[in-house]
Amino acid sequence: MADYQAFRVELADKVAHVVINRPEKINAMNAAFWTEIIDIFRWVDETDEVRVVVLSGAGKHFSSGIDLSLLAQIGSQLGKDVGRNAQTLRRKILELQASFNAVDQCRKPVLAAIQGYCLGGAIDLVSACDMRYCAEDAQFAIKEIDIGMAADVGTLQRLPRIIGDGMMRELAFTGRTVGAAEARQIGLVNQVFADLDGLQTGVMDIARLIAAKSPIAVRGTKEMIRYMRDHRVDDGLEYVATWNAAMLQSVDLRVAMAAHMSKQNPEFAD
Amino acid sequence: MADYQAFRVELADKVAHVVINRPEKINAMNAAFWTEIIDIFRWVDETDEVRVVVLSGAGKHFSSGIDLSLLAQIGSQLGKDVGRNAQTLRRKILELQASFNAVDQCRKPVLAAIQGYCLGGAIDLVSACDMRYCAEDAQFAIKEIDIGMAADVGTLQRLPRIIGDGMMRELAFTGRTVGAAEARQIGLVNQVFADLDGLQTGVMDIARLIAAKSPIAVRGTKEMIRYMRDHRVDDGLEYVATWNAAMLQSVDLRVAMAAHMSKQNPEFAD
Amino acid sequence: MADYQAFRVELADKVAHVVINRPEKINAMNAAFWTEIIDIFRWVDETDEVRVVVLSGAGKHFSSGIDLSLLAQIGSQLGKDVGRNAQTLRRKILELQASFNAVDQCRKPVLAAIQGYCLGGAIDLVSACDMRYCAEDAQFAIKEIDIGMAADVGTLQRLPRIIGDGMMRELAFTGRTVGAAEARQIGLVNQVFADLDGLQTGVMDIARLIAAKSPIAVRGTKEMIRYMRDHRVDDGLEYVATWNAAMLQSVDLRVAMAAHMSKQNPEFAD
Amino acid sequence: MADYQAFRVELADKVAHVVINRPEKINAMNAAFWTEIIDIFRWVDETDEVRVVVLSGAGKHFSSGIDLSLLAQIGSQLGKDVGRNAQTLRRKILELQASFNAVDQCRKPVLAAIQGYCLGGAIDLVSACDMRYCAEDAQFAIKEIDIGMAADVGTLQRLPRIIGDGMMRELAFTGRTVGAAEARQIGLVNQVFADLDGLQTGVMDIARLIAAKSPIAVRGTKEMIRYMRDHRVDDGLEYVATWNAAMLQSVDLRVAMAAHMSKQNPEFAD
Amino acid sequence: MADYQAFRVELADKVAHVVINRPEKINAMNAAFWTEIIDIFRWVDETDEVRVVVLSGAGKHFSSGIDLSLLAQIGSQLGKDVGRNAQTLRRKILELQASFNAVDQCRKPVLAAIQGYCLGGAIDLVSACDMRYCAEDAQFAIKEIDIGMAADVGTLQRLPRIIGDGMMRELAFTGRTVGAAEARQIGLVNQVFADLDGLQTGVMDIARLIAAKSPIAVRGTKEMIRYMRDHRVDDGLEYVATWNAAMLQSVDLRVAMAAHMSKQNPEFAD
Amino acid sequence: MADYQAFRVELADKVAHVVINRPEKINAMNAAFWTEIIDIFRWVDETDEVRVVVLSGAGKHFSSGIDLSLLAQIGSQLGKDVGRNAQTLRRKILELQASFNAVDQCRKPVLAAIQGYCLGGAIDLVSACDMRYCAEDAQFAIKEIDIGMAADVGTLQRLPRIIGDGMMRELAFTGRTVGAAEARQIGLVNQVFADLDGLQTGVMDIARLIAAKSPIAVRGTKEMIRYMRDHRVDDGLEYVATWNAAMLQSVDLRVAMAAHMSKQNPEFAD
Repeated sequence: MADYQAFRVELADKVAHVVINRPEKINAMNAAFWTEIIDIFRWVDETDEVRVVVLSGAGKHFSSGIDLSLLAQIGSQLGKDVGRNAQTLRRKILELQASFNAVDQCRKPVLAAIQGYCLGGAIDLVSACDMRYCAEDAQFAIKEIDIGMAADVGTLQRLPRIIGDGMMRELAFTGRTVGAAEARQIGLVNQVFADLDGLQTGVMDIARLIAAKSPIAVRGTKEMIRYMRDHRVDDGLEYVATWNAAMLQSVDLRVAMAAHMSKQNPEFAD
Repeated sequence: MADYQAFRVELADKVAHVVINRPEKINAMNAAFWTEIIDIFRWVDETDEVRVVVLSGAGKHFSSGIDLSLLAQIGSQLGKDVGRNAQTLRRKILELQASFNAVDQCRKPVLAAIQGYCLGGAIDLVSACDMRYCAEDAQFAIKEIDIGMAADVGTLQRLPRIIGDGMMRELAFTGRTVGAAEARQIGLVNQVFADLDGLQTGVMDIARLIAAKSPIAVRGTKEMIRYMRDHRVDDGLEYVATWNAAMLQSVDLRVAMAAHMSKQNPEFAD
Repeated sequence: MADYQAFRVELADKVAHVVINRPEKINAMNAAFWTEIIDIFRWVDETDEVRVVVLSGAGKHFSSGIDLSLLAQIGSQLGKDVGRNAQTLRRKILELQASFNAVDQCRKPVLAAIQGYCLGGAIDLVSACDMRYCAEDAQFAIKEIDIGMAADVGTLQRLPRIIGDGMMRELAFTGRTVGAAEARQIGLVNQVFADLDGLQTGVMDIARLIAAKSPIAVRGTKEMIRYMRDHRVDDGLEYVATWNAAMLQSVDLRVAMAAHMSKQNPEFAD
Repeated sequence: MADYQAFRVELADKVAHVVINRPEKINAMNAAFWTEIIDIFRWVDETDEVRVVVLSGAGKHFSSGIDLSLLAQIGSQLGKDVGRNAQTLRRKILELQASFNAVDQCRKPVLAAIQGYCLGGAIDLVSACDMRYCAEDAQFAIKEIDIGMAADVGTLQRLPRIIGDGMMRELAFTGRTVGAAEARQIGLVNQVFADLDGLQTGVMDIARLIAAKSPIAVRGTKEMIRYMRDHRVDDGLEYVATWNAAMLQSVDLRVAMAAHMSKQNPEFAD
Repeated sequence: MADYQAFRVELADKVAHVVINRPEKINAMNAAFWTEIIDIFRWVDETDEVRVVVLSGAGKHFSSGIDLSLLAQIGSQLGKDVGRNAQTLRRKILELQASFNAVDQCRKPVLAAIQGYCLGGAIDLVSACDMRYCAEDAQFAIKEIDIGMAADVGTLQRLPRIIGDGMMRELAFTGRTVGAAEARQIGLVNQVFADLDGLQTGVMDIARLIAAKSPIAVRGTKEMIRYMRDHRVDDGLEYVATWNAAMLQSVDLRVAMAAHMSKQNPEFAD
Repeated sequence: MADYQAFRVELADKVAHVVINRPEKINAMNAAFWTEIIDIFRWVDETDEVRVVVLSGAGKHFSSGIDLSLLAQIGSQLGKDVGRNAQTLRRKILELQASFNAVDQCRKPVLAAIQGYCLGGAIDLVSACDMRYCAEDAQFAIKEIDIGMAADVGTLQRLPRIIGDGMMRELAFTGRTVGAAEARQIGLVNQVFADLDGLQTGVMDIARLIAAKSPIAVRGTKEMIRYMRDHRVDDGLEYVATWNAAMLQSVDLRVAMAAHMSKQNPEFAD
């Protein structure tokens, strides 16, 4: 694990804890954030010892979203020709998207633990995670509408699959704040914890539970659910048959089955 | 704004209020309804001053659905050859669908405010709106099953994306009535208001809130959510990057940002 | 109706009651189960008198999922070459999937009535049904993760369309147990009944209600909802227009309309 | 048939002959062209007597493409805000596309007869026809590249399905001219006629041959091929089964079969 | 191998030769044909010794297509209600399609050897094969248009992927006859042989050449090309990576590589 | 431009010439090849001065495909567990694919100039280019079948869109060699040049012709054709409208139009 400017990363019990670490800036997403997150998730993907990721924010808030100074800097790169500016902006947006695609496409489950503000770009980020959990004080808002733009790094693309279509539109058009209870009711988070401590302990428990399962099984499961977000049922069935044609030959099945029979906890290789 | 037989249309505070106006017929959808709605939403789409639409029904009920005399009239156009009848029916259905496609594809958000009956064709209609709100007395039922047919102007196509698949099937197979509380619970409506007055005031407030946002941002947001209903996440990301390549060059971002900095309300051009 | 080893099948009031009938084995899905279910649903599909299906499990539990001895038997068919084993496994998985595809593609609505355990393969099965209902004591768990594999006969493919994406992932990664109330809250079941008796009576009532509707209308409705799970809104609209081009020429519309006018119950031919 | 400024339309032997009629301007596509073509093809679609369309250009050339003065006029509608200009341009392009979509979606086969120049917008147009035939002197070129833009009214979208991908790219990137023989070789045209007379007679003969077939069968055939351009084989098979469920009940099959048995020419109702 | 009424089946040198064997009826496809072909291709699929299939017709012609008496028999099953007739016809068409789907989805390559007539249903059949070869006297025609119907067992669905779109439409609308040379030019057949003897010898040589390759490699190759007919390039790349994750662990690679090094012919297990 | 082990790269007249430069190894694709090609095409993509790419092979042959020692090295990374091996192989294949995706997704046109051998992996590579040109002595063969595997770095995914489906299957199943004339006939190459000199001069001329066009127009054109390989016509039309909403505001249109009017050669900014 390298040293990061915008993050702090720890690894224990097969769980990588990735913490956005600029609490004095409400964890606003600056230039370092967008490039470091790619490196971190490449490391997650390549490191067999990491089986699950918990993503959180240091301090009182999860994150206030993109750092506005970064937006200003992108604006300053534009020239006079609208066509060439459009090419520049399009590439820049695709680059920013790639940072959250790295989270979405990570082969290990990613659990977001959210307290306080989760605004704008932070919604784009947690939409790319597998599951979301929050503390009572969490506040969610799709803030992009209030800086005059359509959200373009994932919220509008991934959130409709997570919450209902009707509420999705209301939140995106109005930018209004959603509290923890409503977030739970519409499916934005899976569970609400009483406070930050409860959140951290609770999410880490779920993470460790998953980390104890067969990594072969967990990765296959994630790949299949990810695939179904965008594919037909018949294609999904064919895909899992092809996938499991190899994976069912793994030793993990025998390990799991033996543990099941002997009522012991199985131990899987990384 | 032209004069309409089946509607009353008003424009104030950048919000167009489109009212189905045949209360003596429980706002049943007659021939005039199906053609006028296309004209109205073309006007909405082309009129820059209109930023948001509220759709409601005059009187005690939202609408009882398609006027049965219209169905009878379509039946009377059929001849002896099954094949040619099929061609006629297919074109007629596509024509009726086009009326609600005009609502669905409208570039401005459309909010439905529903009281009393919302039956059959009325469900097809509100399924094509962006958001749905209702009063306590609202009653929803997919009535097509009881006239011996599969709903064919949008309910079966759009509603599964709004409410859960399991409940969708129950409601479509049984035609049973759903009240306001259950409608809220399954995501069919976003919010329930105590009475008709509360509904009208509440929905108009949400509409005005959206109308005060950047029209460039609101349209982009609607287009992206509409697009995701039918496309893959990767296609959606590429599409928004291409879209924003132009839109982020708009003055609205600077207006919004300046207002944000000075804590004032931004004023956007139509 | 033939005699079955793993099932008991009854037909009354146009409703076929299909009961998994190995209560002494917690209705575990053995070899007979997987082939007989195909025969049963072919019979359902071809028998005009059957209009609706209720699927349940005999005894205290719905089903504990696939019989582990069947898994062992499949394993015993593998040889030394990984490639040829993969071909064998892939075909075997596709075969098992075909058993539940027969449920999913059945032209008549299928209602699952669930009490006690509904584990592993049993979740795959009920995900292929149209609607799910349960008793208070129902317990759901995606157990495949605990035998070291990704579920491959339908849960990961069909359930994401039924429950929310975030909760879907948690349940699939952790294999944790979900009770009746939570199942209702996340949309996994439509309704919870107090006990087994209430469940059986309640589901049969819903089944009879549907069986009294026009079979032409019910089949069209099922086909359209099934189609929308995997297709675009515009394709769905075109498909229903083509479908109804024939079906609206059926006598069922006139029968339904006449009954509607005279406030009597319609009688439809099978 | 109305009077048109940019076209001449005739109807004989069930074949509508639609002629672009601005020979003094090399049949350049002016404002009248783009709106009138929609009216003409709506008339074609709604007029049962019309069974086939032949599309050609008056004078020495088929068409030189879009009238540059029309482009200039669109440019003059742009203002200062890049975002609002983008909205205006996007809508204008969609409008122009709609003119050729009317050709593509016409339910009757459309045969293009091409002599001399077929440049820029004219390629977009003939790409939307069912079949293309030309005289020896025909010259094809994707000219949009030379006015600094990507073709946006159909060439880049429809032509790749007609000619090979590799040659498609060469022609689009270079804008080079393709003669009749090469056009035939790459599948751009079906047949080359020696001169204008031969072209007109030959294409009209093919049109009359098709016009003598069952209109039910011809429309079904066109719909199925159009559908397959964008859909999967399994979806196409399901769609034609649903379509023919109605159409095989038409009297045309019996008429055709009887004629076949008695070796006479069948006569089909419009 | 069972005995068949409509076919003769032989197996030699790992190549199954499937011969339509009703020469006195120009190999017209009768009821036995449609059911036996499913059995034969199931046997092909399940029999490891069969590595390639050659499909041909006994006598002077390949096949004149569907037996008209079968069509008449289907017609005789229809009753009075248009809706129920439509249900019956739809199921019947899907059944007939399943016969050719069995050819298309067969895991081993299928080579069609065609002499004389190849009309109507015979085009549907050869469109479902992997490759087509013909003798000089072959005559192809999409005859369905002349019996008043759109072809519904595969021609309109599969042939557009094989020949050019423009020529596809001409042949389907006109039903005109295509000779061997034109068939070769438009890609309908891969090669033309001088006479029946040359055809039989030539196709069998190609079949034996393929039968000598690794069966693991041949099946993977067929699956990937079949997949690409209906899927995106990125999906195809992901699919082959998942497929080869298992198959590259097969011994066939080492066998092939060793043979390659020693310049000997490899011998692969079935 | 960096120094490369497996390539030589030159830039002149806005055309980058990328030469595979291991003639003593018949330009076999070694480890350096697969990583350097990504760097080179990233440089191409980011360097505005590069407008077109010509890809060729040094010496007598274009390339003999993947270096077999690289395959052996991958094999040596495998361990004992089939499941973990499958994960390793899947990732490795995706990595190799990424090298040719970099060619396919490059925003500038890529022209392949091919002499002598173009075998196995070399077909995968040229299938990812925009256009292919060859000398008389070129020899193409899909060699993967002869090392016991299905091609998995692009041939089976991209080539079916370029040559006919029937011939595609023959070449992939048999691995037989195709000469220059047949390659031209089936659309694999656009043009055959008499010898290596003619090839190099001819391809460079086409490259310079394209390099003189508006880069905005060329990139838009490439993006649209790439998009249509995997998308529907209606999606493609909407996408180009959104794209051109920005690009038609570029100064390149005015430059092109002015040059067109004054019959001079336009000069476009990079």
